[in-house]
Amino acid sequence: MSIYTASTTAPVNIATLKYWGKRDKTLNLPTNSSISVTLAQEDLRTLTSVATSESFSQDQLWLNGQPESLQGERTQHCLQDLRNLRARVEAQDSNLPRMSQWKLHIVSENNFPTAAGLASSAAGFAALVMAIAKLYQLPDSHSEISKIARKGSGSACRSLFGGYVAWEMGSESDGSDSKAVEVAPQSHWPEMKAAILVVSADRKDTPSTSGMQHTVATSDLFQERIHNVVPKRFEEMKQAIQDRDFTRFAELTMRDSNSFHATCLDSFPPIFYMNDTSRKIVKLCHQINAFYDETIVAYTFDAGPNAVLYYLQENEAKLMAFVHHVFQKNSGWETKFSQGDLEKFSDFFKTRVAPEVAFEFDEELYKGVSRVILTQVGPGPLDTTECLINKSTGYPN
Amino acid sequence: MSIYTASTTAPVNIATLKYWGKRDKTLNLPTNSSISVTLAQEDLRTLTSVATSESFSQDQLWLNGQPESLQGERTQHCLQDLRNLRARVEAQDSNLPRMSQWKLHIVSENNFPTAAGLASSAAGFAALVMAIAKLYQLPDSHSEISKIARKGSGSACRSLFGGYVAWEMGSESDGSDSKAVEVAPQSHWPEMKAAILVVSADRKDTPSTSGMQHTVATSDLFQERIHNVVPKRFEEMKQAIQDRDFTRFAELTMRDSNSFHATCLDSFPPIFYMNDTSRKIVKLCHQINAFYDETIVAYTFDAGPNAVLYYLQENEAKLMAFVHHVFQKNSGWETKFSQGDLEKFSDFFKTRVAPEVAFEFDEELYKGVSRVILTQVGPGPLDTTECLINKSTGYPN
Repeated sequence: MSIYTASTTAPVNIATLKYWGKRDKTLNLPTNSSISVTLAQEDLRTLTSVATSESFSQDQLWLNGQPESLQGERTQHCLQDLRNLRARVEAQDSNLPRMSQWKLHIVSENNFPTAAGLASSAAGFAALVMAIAKLYQLPDSHSEISKIARKGSGSACRSLFGGYVAWEMGSESDGSDSKAVEVAPQSHWPEMKAAILVVSADRKDTPSTSGMQHTVATSDLFQERIHNVVPKRFEEMKQAIQDRDFTRFAELTMRDSNSFHATCLDSFPPIFYMNDTSRKIVKLCHQINAFYDETIVAYTFDAGPNAVLYYLQENEAKLMAFVHHVFQKNSGWETKFSQGDLEKFSDFFKTRVAPEVAFEFDEELYKGVSRVILTQVGPGPLDTTECLINKSTGYPN
Repeated sequence: MSIYTASTTAPVNIATLKYWGKRDKTLNLPTNSSISVTLAQEDLRTLTSVATSESFSQDQLWLNGQPESLQGERTQHCLQDLRNLRARVEAQDSNLPRMSQWKLHIVSENNFPTAAGLASSAAGFAALVMAIAKLYQLPDSHSEISKIARKGSGSACRSLFGGYVAWEMGSESDGSDSKAVEVAPQSHWPEMKAAILVVSADRKDTPSTSGMQHTVATSDLFQERIHNVVPKRFEEMKQAIQDRDFTRFAELTMRDSNSFHATCLDSFPPIFYMNDTSRKIVKLCHQINAFYDETIVAYTFDAGPNAVLYYLQENEAKLMAFVHHVFQKNSGWETKFSQGDLEKFSDFFKTRVAPEVAFEFDEELYKGVSRVILTQVGPGPLDTTECLINKSTGYPN
């Protein structure tokens, strides 16, 4: 019997206006709209292949080489939605194979280590949903598909688009208007780069799903954030992106990261995601901007201690003079920079920074960081000819 | 010529509802009311002696053995206010010496190391103002005197009373109704104890005066704190003290510490006072309360990384089973506990805690702490026969 396959890749996105708080846990409907930058897939992506056949006996998933359960409520939600849409397509064309009735084999791989602590669920659910949508030949509306991905993992909806993406919270109780939309494509502002400083965590963080509901339930300051602070910032940040105004974009991004972590601290008991290394990176970024008397870098922290630094290509040498100086002993530099590039950063530091800098560097700071990931704004899910499933057997290669 | 002297001691107070933000910088008028517990002076106090004489040629101050300037605007404010009150007293009785015209010698000493990073300005200004008020034989209204101390250092006004103290923010622009009042005397709830974990800081903190104005100017969440969160909490905390309801008192205290630090984090650039050691102490306190399924300890953090733990005498063994276990290598235990007491804590830990505890202890946590200060609720400023000034020379002994 025929085995049908499809494959896609999907990107990681890092929010610049944070999603924190659900108004509906089953449908993953948020308490506020959010904005993110989609990152390049050559550095961070999930590749997912799906196969279906009348002969398959059960839905199965392999994640990074290991069999995993598909029984999670959220995953089941996604699969059911996709099958319902496929059934509608089949109802209009009786020649189509009845895939909506068949079981699925799903194989998924990340090109980055899970140990990095980067939220992989966004890319994972985006790739899962896109691959099945492609297999099912569903009508191609990324915003519609984003609503299904959202049910798997809220922030996954934003990984359906490249460039600069908004997740509009919507107001309908069924979630029909809670979807991702493009604020601007990658081509609008392609100079945006990101340096991720992977910070070593000494214990397991509070999972974001339970953490955000804890904040909703217990923080006195949270209501102010979602009702007044974020709605204003959402409009301002979209405008800053449209205007390619990095100074404004950066300030809003840093402020929103701090606001989100402030509501975590205001929860009871408090939730801490940033550690001393994170705090020192925040201070370093402000010192760098003060040194140049210009905002050339923005930090943002998700539900963990890792720092994501956004900056523009044109300021790379100025920024890296500092960042490479402090974190040069960490791995990751070699992926994007030649020895010559790195020497230029060192020279810049020695000749331009060191003679004028008025603060002391924490020479031990790199010890709290395990690696540097250098990347940039990138496109949304991509078709790929790579397939992780053997088209004859229907099982992982 | 005659030299007149007076001496007083004044206590440290640690806020349970935090003062953070001024609506008037010159008069030290706060953006919200606050509440504190006054601590016992055998452990933490300032002793101040003052002298005045027609023969003195200039105002002079010696602080912990060192000459210090009296030219600060705040100190000048206090001295001028006290001289004005004295002049009024003199106007009513022509027999009184004209001290309001004379210069002052002021000698002040703390009984705790400045290096501990405990806010000594509150006790310092309270003692300064009280000693001069006594020297000048001013009418004895502690709330009136507290308004003068407030101009020296806001939180100093709360050190004019013992026990449980509120600083009512007031609404008048001249500060005439911004004063400290007694919520309850020490005798109302004498069982309140405090353990201060002095946390090593790796750099100078943002001074609280500039820090709080930075928060007022830049934090989006701050307005919610001062207009809605604190006013409600102020009434609830006074009630909890009146009811001697430790559970309620403790939760309000912990929430308010977190709320204050959340607005610091929400400032731009953010201010961080708590470090990883502070965060771990917070977690430990919640774990202790969870272990006993009862709130037996409350943490609070001022504008620095030190933890102040409040608890009731009746729960000392239960609390110290944990706290002594984790911090036994730090100094300070010997000041209040015999070897036998400490062995009881260890036994309690071994027999009652260790077999049932479901979390792991950070065995390195004590390394972030330099000493433990054990104290309790105490009285307000006290008369003393000790005098730091030689009554013949008018200079420090």
